[in-house]
Amino acid sequence: MSTQQTVIDFEPVGRRATAQPNETILQVAQRAGVGIMAVCGGHGTCGRCVVQVRAGQLSEPTAVEKKRFNPDQLAQGFRLACQAKPLTDIKLYIPPSSMTTTQRTQVEGKEYEVEFEPAVKVVRLKIPPASLEDLRSDAQRLRDVCREQCPDLDGRIDFTLLRQLSHVVRQHNWDVKVVLRQTADGHEVIAVLPPAQIPLGLAVDLGTTKVAGYLVNMETGETLQAKGIMNPQISYGEDVMARITYAMEGPEKAETLRLAIVHGIEDLAKDMCKAIGAGIDQIVESVIVGNTAMHHLFLGLPVHQLGTAPYVPAENMALDVKARDIGFRFAPGAYVHLLPNIAGFVGADHVAMLLATGIGEAPEDEVWVGMDIGTNTEIGMSARGRLLTCSTASGPAFEGAHIKYGMRAAPGAIEAVRLEEDGELRVRTIDNQPAVGICGSGILDVIAELYKRGILNRRGAMSEAPRVRPSNDGRGHEYVLVPAEESGIQEDITVSRGDISEIQLAKGAMRAGLNLLLQTAGLTDQDITRFVIAGAFGTYIDLESAITIGMLPAIPRHRFVQVGNAAGIGAKQALLSVKRRQQAVAIARKAEYIELTTDPRFTGEFARTIQLGQPDAR
Amino acid sequence: MSTQQTVIDFEPVGRRATAQPNETILQVAQRAGVGIMAVCGGHGTCGRCVVQVRAGQLSEPTAVEKKRFNPDQLAQGFRLACQAKPLTDIKLYIPPSSMTTTQRTQVEGKEYEVEFEPAVKVVRLKIPPASLEDLRSDAQRLRDVCREQCPDLDGRIDFTLLRQLSHVVRQHNWDVKVVLRQTADGHEVIAVLPPAQIPLGLAVDLGTTKVAGYLVNMETGETLQAKGIMNPQISYGEDVMARITYAMEGPEKAETLRLAIVHGIEDLAKDMCKAIGAGIDQIVESVIVGNTAMHHLFLGLPVHQLGTAPYVPAENMALDVKARDIGFRFAPGAYVHLLPNIAGFVGADHVAMLLATGIGEAPEDEVWVGMDIGTNTEIGMSARGRLLTCSTASGPAFEGAHIKYGMRAAPGAIEAVRLEEDGELRVRTIDNQPAVGICGSGILDVIAELYKRGILNRRGAMSEAPRVRPSNDGRGHEYVLVPAEESGIQEDITVSRGDISEIQLAKGAMRAGLNLLLQTAGLTDQDITRFVIAGAFGTYIDLESAITIGMLPAIPRHRFVQVGNAAGIGAKQALLSVKRRQQAVAIARKAEYIELTTDPRFTGEFARTIQLGQPDAR
Repeated sequence: MSTQQTVIDFEPVGRRATAQPNETILQVAQRAGVGIMAVCGGHGTCGRCVVQVRAGQLSEPTAVEKKRFNPDQLAQGFRLACQAKPLTDIKLYIPPSSMTTTQRTQVEGKEYEVEFEPAVKVVRLKIPPASLEDLRSDAQRLRDVCREQCPDLDGRIDFTLLRQLSHVVRQHNWDVKVVLRQTADGHEVIAVLPPAQIPLGLAVDLGTTKVAGYLVNMETGETLQAKGIMNPQISYGEDVMARITYAMEGPEKAETLRLAIVHGIEDLAKDMCKAIGAGIDQIVESVIVGNTAMHHLFLGLPVHQLGTAPYVPAENMALDVKARDIGFRFAPGAYVHLLPNIAGFVGADHVAMLLATGIGEAPEDEVWVGMDIGTNTEIGMSARGRLLTCSTASGPAFEGAHIKYGMRAAPGAIEAVRLEEDGELRVRTIDNQPAVGICGSGILDVIAELYKRGILNRRGAMSEAPRVRPSNDGRGHEYVLVPAEESGIQEDITVSRGDISEIQLAKGAMRAGLNLLLQTAGLTDQDITRFVIAGAFGTYIDLESAITIGMLPAIPRHRFVQVGNAAGIGAKQALLSVKRRQQAVAIARKAEYIELTTDPRFTGEFARTIQLGQPDAR
Repeated sequence: MSTQQTVIDFEPVGRRATAQPNETILQVAQRAGVGIMAVCGGHGTCGRCVVQVRAGQLSEPTAVEKKRFNPDQLAQGFRLACQAKPLTDIKLYIPPSSMTTTQRTQVEGKEYEVEFEPAVKVVRLKIPPASLEDLRSDAQRLRDVCREQCPDLDGRIDFTLLRQLSHVVRQHNWDVKVVLRQTADGHEVIAVLPPAQIPLGLAVDLGTTKVAGYLVNMETGETLQAKGIMNPQISYGEDVMARITYAMEGPEKAETLRLAIVHGIEDLAKDMCKAIGAGIDQIVESVIVGNTAMHHLFLGLPVHQLGTAPYVPAENMALDVKARDIGFRFAPGAYVHLLPNIAGFVGADHVAMLLATGIGEAPEDEVWVGMDIGTNTEIGMSARGRLLTCSTASGPAFEGAHIKYGMRAAPGAIEAVRLEEDGELRVRTIDNQPAVGICGSGILDVIAELYKRGILNRRGAMSEAPRVRPSNDGRGHEYVLVPAEESGIQEDITVSRGDISEIQLAKGAMRAGLNLLLQTAGLTDQDITRFVIAGAFGTYIDLESAITIGMLPAIPRHRFVQVGNAAGIGAKQALLSVKRRQQAVAIARKAEYIELTTDPRFTGEFARTIQLGQPDAR
């Protein structure tokens, strides 16, 4: 048994986390936001959380592990993360088969707080067979037995299910699982499954860049699979505005964009279903959240009015749409539920985040802020009974775009930078590969360190210092982060004046948005009692760096919570519980949207927050 | 002004009718069941009822006609049927452009009894435009204005309408026609039309052989167009069983059949819309009735269990299905309503007939029978508070199939035959063309005349007589109806022993069905107070002939009513009135279905009724 703190290096995600004495690798991973499969909830029964130790010493293999692995495998270092505990600092490799979406697991715990009361109910029914003495239609036979056995579940039958019903009931000897779906006026029979098939639910966080999917057993509420993919629409435009512009070029273009994401989500669902030996025709319910533009492009709604002032959505209400109307080949009558949008640039994903993090229902005497950092950064604030929201065009700089050596978080990306007082520069790359570029958390670190060490002034101008040199393009100076001989691309990896400006614009927009919400509520940053940072990028940033450059307010560090993909968790909560859907509607209704682009205070505030460091107190 | 009865020969339909003094051609045509377009209801305003007089004398052209036609056209005999009155016997040609479905008009009058209270409501609304001060979503803007102006019409918005909404409201300056559809729990916005567009309704009688469509103005209830086509599924199988067999060969075959009729109906709708300068995207509501097999094949429901004992439908309830789920490109959220079926072989078309003819709600002290003669003949009987129904496999003989020289009603078909006591044979063909075959009413006449003159005995055997000769195939005798030199096909047109047997089987099945219904109710044929004959064939048959061979009971002639396409009228009533839909559900629920194939009485009854003449009293 370990008796002291140890350090685990998770690869290939490149995360380092401290293990408390007697903690399992899975527990550490979950706390650190490293996505390791844990279908059984960490009880050693599913055998999915396979990891491979590459350095350091672990506890002896348990009986569970000895059953899971043969001696050869154990000799190669294969272990179950839910069983093994580090005895020393260790280096760990997570095989792709054990990975979930990277930002998921640390909020996984929250879902268990949600009561399982989904929109679909599954009942096993024996239907009396047709005979010369019983000439009722098959549909009537089903309706009557529903009525007999569960009087409150009587309802109409989706007509496309009727195309299968006669066949399925005869093939399974009139003994089937009947799936009923709540509607405004009762229940509707949406699927009839063979008795051995599990009815599945699909929750999706549809991001501009990434898509996260979760597959759930709709009889138990158990999460069976989780998987992330890139949004296939990226090839048609990197950010929301580019995609709106593309869609506005004509109905075929809009349809191309729509089909790209529809097929992307269907493929994601297929992969997850295949992994458990199921088919997507077992998916009986789905919840999808995204920002307003993704929501509209996914549904094929017009985006022209989203892309031009006054930026109004075509629809903001929660929607129940037949999956077949989207183009999904799920169970015959399956629905896709879409959480409500708040405004043109504050969408259902933000509602899902406010739902999952509790900000939407925060105590009245507290001030909770939720910030979802991305190309657009949405901010929600629960303060004294109000729920204020805004969106700022923070740009894709933190995704690596518009940064000379910028890149997404991938092996070789510089993800952390420290400049010691003695001038020593430490650079960490993802997967410890030779540096090939800088990802969002890395660029944030560089700028914070340079500012802290006085190499950058408040306006972002660079002064003379080691590694600082005039830039080739003659536009000011640049900082050499990794010289060519050490880099993986045979050239200097530098940070330029232009890069710094991009980050200033991004962080200035975010902070100005936050400050305007605070002003609207008559508060200052010190009044914030909880500050939730959501989203992939938000998970990996160094809080101190973000505070140093003034992106985040300088409040006590324990008030910050980095929750990872809260939108995805919100989507899953809505899949598991109709009450959570109602709560989402209440959140969207309560939310007051502050339009920053027309707010006369914004320009002045932005001029202050664009500067590095905490803005001056006024 | 005409002061005496005259006779009008309508061509190409080959109908002859007597005109009372001072009747217009249109009035005579409507009484005789000849389908002449009368969009304006016969007020001379639509100019659609163009006819051409080919022999005889008409009243002077009216001012309306002089405005409609130039002197050349008038010289060629072109007139408006609603204006012109015959002064002598006349021969009239109806151009295709003036024809409706042939069997429609005579029941046209009944629809005016239906109160106009359709499932859709149309309201003209001005929606407040989006602005920086009003950032509501377009959908919310629409919902709010619906709620303000008509509190009872609040409801959800079909999501595919959302794809058009933003564009349509902006294009028409936020002033539009909003179409709301009743649902189980309120109203749903299903279409938003430019203010100048008429929202349309489509009623369809989907027959095994023929399809009749009606286009209705859903703001006024006015019928704008009516048109008939052949069912395009005919090329895959002539009767119901052939099509069920085809569909059972595989899902692709079933889909081929389904698409054939879906495209057929959509094309029919397009033609009717085009005729009034509209598009099918203006169709906001539709009602379709057909027999159970047509209903199932149209919806893509399985038919295997329909084609094998115990012949149960997949579904019998009334259905509201989104038109897009069928494949129709109507208004975004438009529904197709399907009336309920009664049993595997008594479908929604029979329900529509019982609805349109009032049999479903007949007075308790009367006995009303409705017979829809076709390949399957459905019989309904309202007697002493019960509503009994059955279906008999009468076969396609009356459609001309399985009859050596049989053909459908088309130019040159022998449609009426008289054999005088002196042996003179009179044969009338459709359009007075040289005879090329015999259609249903003709074959019925021949057999009745031969039986009446003693040339056929009860068992259908032929005795020596003029025109009777041994048949070439050595199987009994045949009767020469038209010798080769007078026929249009250079060969003798004959009636064979086999032909007579086919008719005996058909009429025997019908009459046995009727008799079993009467027996079930404890009645005899003389108790029948009204006998409604529906369907195309039923319109053209000679009652006396049908009674002579025993197909129909020998009750006083005035109790018979030939109503034409009552199923189509029933469909239109359901389009015009939700109360009529509820009535149809009540009819289907009340109906008792008598399964003849397993009824022990059937064989004995059939052995009696297969003989020519009225069955012996027992």
